[in-house]
Amino acid sequence: MRMLSPDMETSTLATNLDTQTAPLPIRVTIWNEGRYEKNRPEIASVYPVGIHGAIAQALNNAGGIQARGVTLDDMEHGLTDEVVDSTDVMIWWGHGHHADVDDRIVERVHKRVLAGMGMVVLHSGHFSKIFKRLMGTTCDLKWRDTGERETLWVTRPGHPIVEGIDDHFVLDKEEMYGEYFDVPEPESTFLISSFEGGEVFRSGMTWTRGAGKIVYFRPGHETFPTYYDKRVQRIIENAVRWAHPLWGKVGYGERKMGWVNREQTNPTGS
Amino acid sequence: MRMLSPDMETSTLATNLDTQTAPLPIRVTIWNEGRYEKNRPEIASVYPVGIHGAIAQALNNAGGIQARGVTLDDMEHGLTDEVVDSTDVMIWWGHGHHADVDDRIVERVHKRVLAGMGMVVLHSGHFSKIFKRLMGTTCDLKWRDTGERETLWVTRPGHPIVEGIDDHFVLDKEEMYGEYFDVPEPESTFLISSFEGGEVFRSGMTWTRGAGKIVYFRPGHETFPTYYDKRVQRIIENAVRWAHPLWGKVGYGERKMGWVNREQTNPTGS
Amino acid sequence: MRMLSPDMETSTLATNLDTQTAPLPIRVTIWNEGRYEKNRPEIASVYPVGIHGAIAQALNNAGGIQARGVTLDDMEHGLTDEVVDSTDVMIWWGHGHHADVDDRIVERVHKRVLAGMGMVVLHSGHFSKIFKRLMGTTCDLKWRDTGERETLWVTRPGHPIVEGIDDHFVLDKEEMYGEYFDVPEPESTFLISSFEGGEVFRSGMTWTRGAGKIVYFRPGHETFPTYYDKRVQRIIENAVRWAHPLWGKVGYGERKMGWVNREQTNPTGS
Amino acid sequence: MRMLSPDMETSTLATNLDTQTAPLPIRVTIWNEGRYEKNRPEIASVYPVGIHGAIAQALNNAGGIQARGVTLDDMEHGLTDEVVDSTDVMIWWGHGHHADVDDRIVERVHKRVLAGMGMVVLHSGHFSKIFKRLMGTTCDLKWRDTGERETLWVTRPGHPIVEGIDDHFVLDKEEMYGEYFDVPEPESTFLISSFEGGEVFRSGMTWTRGAGKIVYFRPGHETFPTYYDKRVQRIIENAVRWAHPLWGKVGYGERKMGWVNREQTNPTGS
Repeated sequence: MRMLSPDMETSTLATNLDTQTAPLPIRVTIWNEGRYEKNRPEIASVYPVGIHGAIAQALNNAGGIQARGVTLDDMEHGLTDEVVDSTDVMIWWGHGHHADVDDRIVERVHKRVLAGMGMVVLHSGHFSKIFKRLMGTTCDLKWRDTGERETLWVTRPGHPIVEGIDDHFVLDKEEMYGEYFDVPEPESTFLISSFEGGEVFRSGMTWTRGAGKIVYFRPGHETFPTYYDKRVQRIIENAVRWAHPLWGKVGYGERKMGWVNREQTNPTGS
Repeated sequence: MRMLSPDMETSTLATNLDTQTAPLPIRVTIWNEGRYEKNRPEIASVYPVGIHGAIAQALNNAGGIQARGVTLDDMEHGLTDEVVDSTDVMIWWGHGHHADVDDRIVERVHKRVLAGMGMVVLHSGHFSKIFKRLMGTTCDLKWRDTGERETLWVTRPGHPIVEGIDDHFVLDKEEMYGEYFDVPEPESTFLISSFEGGEVFRSGMTWTRGAGKIVYFRPGHETFPTYYDKRVQRIIENAVRWAHPLWGKVGYGERKMGWVNREQTNPTGS
Repeated sequence: MRMLSPDMETSTLATNLDTQTAPLPIRVTIWNEGRYEKNRPEIASVYPVGIHGAIAQALNNAGGIQARGVTLDDMEHGLTDEVVDSTDVMIWWGHGHHADVDDRIVERVHKRVLAGMGMVVLHSGHFSKIFKRLMGTTCDLKWRDTGERETLWVTRPGHPIVEGIDDHFVLDKEEMYGEYFDVPEPESTFLISSFEGGEVFRSGMTWTRGAGKIVYFRPGHETFPTYYDKRVQRIIENAVRWAHPLWGKVGYGERKMGWVNREQTNPTGS
Repeated sequence: MRMLSPDMETSTLATNLDTQTAPLPIRVTIWNEGRYEKNRPEIASVYPVGIHGAIAQALNNAGGIQARGVTLDDMEHGLTDEVVDSTDVMIWWGHGHHADVDDRIVERVHKRVLAGMGMVVLHSGHFSKIFKRLMGTTCDLKWRDTGERETLWVTRPGHPIVEGIDDHFVLDKEEMYGEYFDVPEPESTFLISSFEGGEVFRSGMTWTRGAGKIVYFRPGHETFPTYYDKRVQRIIENAVRWAHPLWGKVGYGERKMGWVNREQTNPTGS
């Protein structure tokens, strides 16, 4: 099991990690601000069960995934210790209310990511406290919200997150995001978009922070039905499978000399 | 399915690629020079069925993998079109006879890797023609063959290739390899070794070339029973699972203007 | 000049950035806790002018660099707006008093790094607030303070930070740091150490955050005269030259459609 | 100086490498097929002194650079041992005649790159033997030659190769290149292009191979006056400065035990 601290305590992730013989479903929590869907009728009509609800339906139909949605106005933003501790992969959608997320909740989620929980950040979540905390940068970018054509090109064929996706796909209407996108150099860039206005954007990227795998996936402005698109749904599903935590172990802290002589083993590894 | 050329031909990998509903076993071919085991009794006594045989046994016991061994002195080095085309992941062990491998066979294997076949290069395979061809560098290093202690440290906890491996492990007797190891910057470094003499080595690294995933894993000098070690076997097994090809598609060649207008789709992605 | 915000304001870095015709000296500020040198005689005897003083002397002798030292107990920790705004590259050494650094000063330094200031973090600075903020991880590691041999191996020959350094060098007595070192995947790993006890450590790494270049360099426990070592001094000098900010420009924020048609230029670029 | 082989021979790069006190000019050789400019009047009218001549003029005006051009039909393609050995950075432009380049010359250039010579590959040079050899991949891509608008966006502000370049620039007429571009994961991606047709391309990337720094820079179809554009010229100049070799040393081959005890040094590094 993964060990987390100098005194080698057992991780709360452990119960779901050794899944090779009898795989348990991946437990996904979709965090959504969830206010636009209540306050703005034109958005409620696009996402009557909320952005979190739309994504949860797609994931629950995919097989091997148990997804639930929580929102900003739930108790502790829906992210109690119990919820966070029983989440393998978190999905994050926020836009206008990043500042309303309590710093203690951000701290809780951050610790859980470093201990191995996957994190899939969507669209305007680029400016969320948790994403900026994980990246260490401003996460700023260019944008234009006029509903224009986005063409997404696969730049890492064979990467698990683009499995089943053609070498490109087109979204008729989306918000534009443009470079420079101020994030650390990613470990992989699996999608790059162009927009009608001539801008480009690294729309799919991955990082590792501690033992946690992190994905940023660009599309999903609240006024467009993007999360019903089958390609978008497939990428989110693939991202969840890719980011779910594997068994791992780390040890930190002070070590005595001479350990290697005591520990040396025979070549059968027994 | 993956398409390989400007005229979009179907890949020979296609038949085994869309495995989500009914996974077929991963087809592994272990290539071994196989001469030491015949010519040098002290090595035959360590590997009576050959290095390829020892690795094949471990993999065939692992579940979901079908492994076979071939050697330099087989017809076409055991790497006929038929064998190469029916291999999902190749493992490569060579040492004293790299120069005897026919350039046309190297070309055949190289093309297959770029089309998606995984490649796991072991120990002295660092100087093989196929590895140098994939890397584009000399692949040179420092070495000492006196049988000394190697300590391998996990430097990417949570990476699929080190799943199930403690945060380090010790091999009592191995050949030393030391930096600088002249290979391109890897996409991940999952193991770094130290040796009794004070040298260090990046012992586990990954790269992508075309659609092919490549792993280098250091241990395995022919005079030591390294490939019976359970940790070594687990890492090879994990590397095979990680490197097996996924569904992918690429398209190259000339494109007409105006395609995007004809192709634009509705947001349901239907 | 580098522009920093959606309204394209001029950076405070600008005055020293366009240096191609008449290069100004690189302005370096060395931040040191500076308490051990006052409170513990055995450390004062090693560093009578402080760790910051020893490093400043070496840098001021190197040519083209103006270095000054500041410490935790100076007003605003020596990091007033004026000091931070007139620093091209900051060097950071801290150990026992990370918690005493005011969060507002950390915020100030963090913003300056994202705007382009270089940051060279030394040894136990791995646990400083500013480094953890930039990395987004725990920055934890293994350690042993018994004064043992460290051998540092160059793993990126030709990198500017190891210019003039042999393919390895040995420090007779240093504190041990061991993997796993919990930092994000670096953009380059230019040094890997082994220790007498058998541990390994990625001792030289680089990252970019925003427009700021970041270096971590491992050696330098306060009880050893490490910062008088010529190889160590050369690497710190090289790191300063590598991390100093270059001219750059970014623009963020909303963009109008049609800009590209208005802006299109002739191929002479005039 | 850089040492290249197990017996530690001195590199031919050595004479120009230790330049800190009295910098010598960077010696650049621009390799060009040079046939279109002779055989096709419409191209001769764009580049009357050849593509190599146009680039050489710009570089020789930049300061600190000595540039010369050579072509395919020169003796040994202009790449004799003497020329290659006295080149710090090579620039490569080819298109229709890659197959006519002798494999022995490719081998010679390849060895020199691994020993530290910089290599800047332009536009259709993506399909040259030397680039494919260095990359290990097909280097294939999509294309369309109708003369359309290319917009290039800086995706790594502060990188030395984009110093002095705005956050984007536009070329009115260029050939389109589109993803997927089959090259290994780069160490940095400093430019991404969009085209009128909706495609995207990673137009500026860097790699290291051995001690050699490699740059790919996309623009420059022979029918357009791209190499007179001031932004394009500045990027090529920056690439040359970035790719020029620094002092480095590597050692390969067998090592004896006990070396570290004999070598251990005092902390002054003397």
